[in-house]
Amino acid sequence: MKDQTMYIPTFRDVLDAHERIRPYIHRTPVLTSTYLNGLTGAELFFKCESFQKAGAFKARGASNAVFGLTEEQAAKGVATHSSGNHGLSLSYAAGRRGIPCTVVMPRTAPQAKKDAVKGYGGRVVECEPSTSSREAVFAEVVAETGAEFVHPYNDPRVIAGQGTCSRELNEQVEGLDAVIAPIGGGGMISGTCLTLSNVAPNIKIYAAEPKQADDAARSFKAGHIIADDAPETVADGLKVPLKELTWHFVRNHVTDILTAEEDEIVDAMKTIWKRMKIVMEPSSAVPLATILRNPNVFKGKRVGVIITGGNVDLDKLPWMKG
Amino acid sequence: MKDQTMYIPTFRDVLDAHERIRPYIHRTPVLTSTYLNGLTGAELFFKCESFQKAGAFKARGASNAVFGLTEEQAAKGVATHSSGNHGLSLSYAAGRRGIPCTVVMPRTAPQAKKDAVKGYGGRVVECEPSTSSREAVFAEVVAETGAEFVHPYNDPRVIAGQGTCSRELNEQVEGLDAVIAPIGGGGMISGTCLTLSNVAPNIKIYAAEPKQADDAARSFKAGHIIADDAPETVADGLKVPLKELTWHFVRNHVTDILTAEEDEIVDAMKTIWKRMKIVMEPSSAVPLATILRNPNVFKGKRVGVIITGGNVDLDKLPWMKG
Repeated sequence: MKDQTMYIPTFRDVLDAHERIRPYIHRTPVLTSTYLNGLTGAELFFKCESFQKAGAFKARGASNAVFGLTEEQAAKGVATHSSGNHGLSLSYAAGRRGIPCTVVMPRTAPQAKKDAVKGYGGRVVECEPSTSSREAVFAEVVAETGAEFVHPYNDPRVIAGQGTCSRELNEQVEGLDAVIAPIGGGGMISGTCLTLSNVAPNIKIYAAEPKQADDAARSFKAGHIIADDAPETVADGLKVPLKELTWHFVRNHVTDILTAEEDEIVDAMKTIWKRMKIVMEPSSAVPLATILRNPNVFKGKRVGVIITGGNVDLDKLPWMKG
Repeated sequence: MKDQTMYIPTFRDVLDAHERIRPYIHRTPVLTSTYLNGLTGAELFFKCESFQKAGAFKARGASNAVFGLTEEQAAKGVATHSSGNHGLSLSYAAGRRGIPCTVVMPRTAPQAKKDAVKGYGGRVVECEPSTSSREAVFAEVVAETGAEFVHPYNDPRVIAGQGTCSRELNEQVEGLDAVIAPIGGGGMISGTCLTLSNVAPNIKIYAAEPKQADDAARSFKAGHIIADDAPETVADGLKVPLKELTWHFVRNHVTDILTAEEDEIVDAMKTIWKRMKIVMEPSSAVPLATILRNPNVFKGKRVGVIITGGNVDLDKLPWMKG
């Protein structure tokens, strides 16, 4: 596992990943909006990973990890800790291969998230909502099952899988000037850097981050990883910090990291729902929020915008009261 | 105008409409859901008119009417009475042609709907919320402007335009056994009948209606038009009655009209939002609700499901409390 973590994936790994996962993922559509083009002065191309299997781009990386295992490894299954889309996606991918999947989640995580993992055939093991408990429980799971750990983002197999998204986008839209995606741990941005630096090195890559969880933006300025201490943001998929592998890609290939305030994120989300008629997560609205905040960066440009996922609680939308 | 109303459109009119409106409408995508296929035992193909211009299939018929006008007619503009998607769509189409559009709406209609019409360049003239006031105000508008009346559905130009939707669907999906669409006034169903009876007469056509506004189902059984008296349903696009032209198509080509209860419609809507990640109207959920209620009719069949529109008030979703 140590070797896996330190290996820096290449574009060859993205191509291999794409062949490997093709039967298990959607080639998601790219949507446009005349209204949003008018609002921003840019030409926006939305790559809708909200329509991806399991509802998020994470199905790409998880499928690559699962279907790249040897038979011997696969028999022992996979495991991860995640209360978000990665746990769901790993459970989806393991279900497609027919191997066991264990997801360690805080007992305080929403029941709907636990049910969703189980819905794809995964097993949920609960821990206390603390890092020490999570690590202890996770170590037990691995000791007991021998399962392969698939980290949500700091894993070359996962990054190579995420890199297939911008490969499709670059095939679907000609002459892009820039691509922008949200940044949390940096898996999607790293995959985007890996692919575009190889196939279209002139496309600028921007990362978008909530101001209230701007560890990546501050790391980018400082030149080394700074981790936030328990940030709070409506974009709950973006709270996690960069790790060494994703930092490698961010540092070397990202043009800038832009941030947006909470109310700007919610406004952008509601605008996308209203005008584009797609259900997507608060995290996925951060790029549009930053484009609206920095119109001069994007004006007149052809910009790919990655809508990373669509898993929201329809009973707790951020513009609902109470 | 009398001539227009009584003329029964032919498939030639659908082909002409398709050529005429192509620059102004989207060829909307067809989406599928493994989850919903499992739930229903059918293979469902969702034709997503929620992604159509102005957010609903109505842009097809309205564009056909507007772009089919002579220069002389066009100079005087178009007019209609509608507080829903037709008013919005007519305003959109008129805006694209650069001609005036007047929409008569009850003063009690939501401000957001009035603003949406104005957003596309249309003029809103308010009436009292009664049929007599609407007719009086509308007559004044026509007398004053000489505008061409475009009825929301009982108009051959509108029906021919709506018929382009199932033409696309039939090109996009091979071997359909059935198509199902919601029925209100019957414009979409009539267009579907017109097209499919010509290009794929073996495909069965089902209409789906809220039980609380089941005038079409009762008309279908009785053999003559029965109009509901001010029905109340969450599927607010489906409250209007059949008229002579749409009744002609329903009577001659529809296999059956199925109904669903209010809670079934809301559940189906939420399920589609949650699993398919699309924003769509309560009206558009009625077909899935009736499929779930009548599994044996659709089991093992390849079924086209028309998602008619996506214009909802995001602050008043039917599963929100209060």
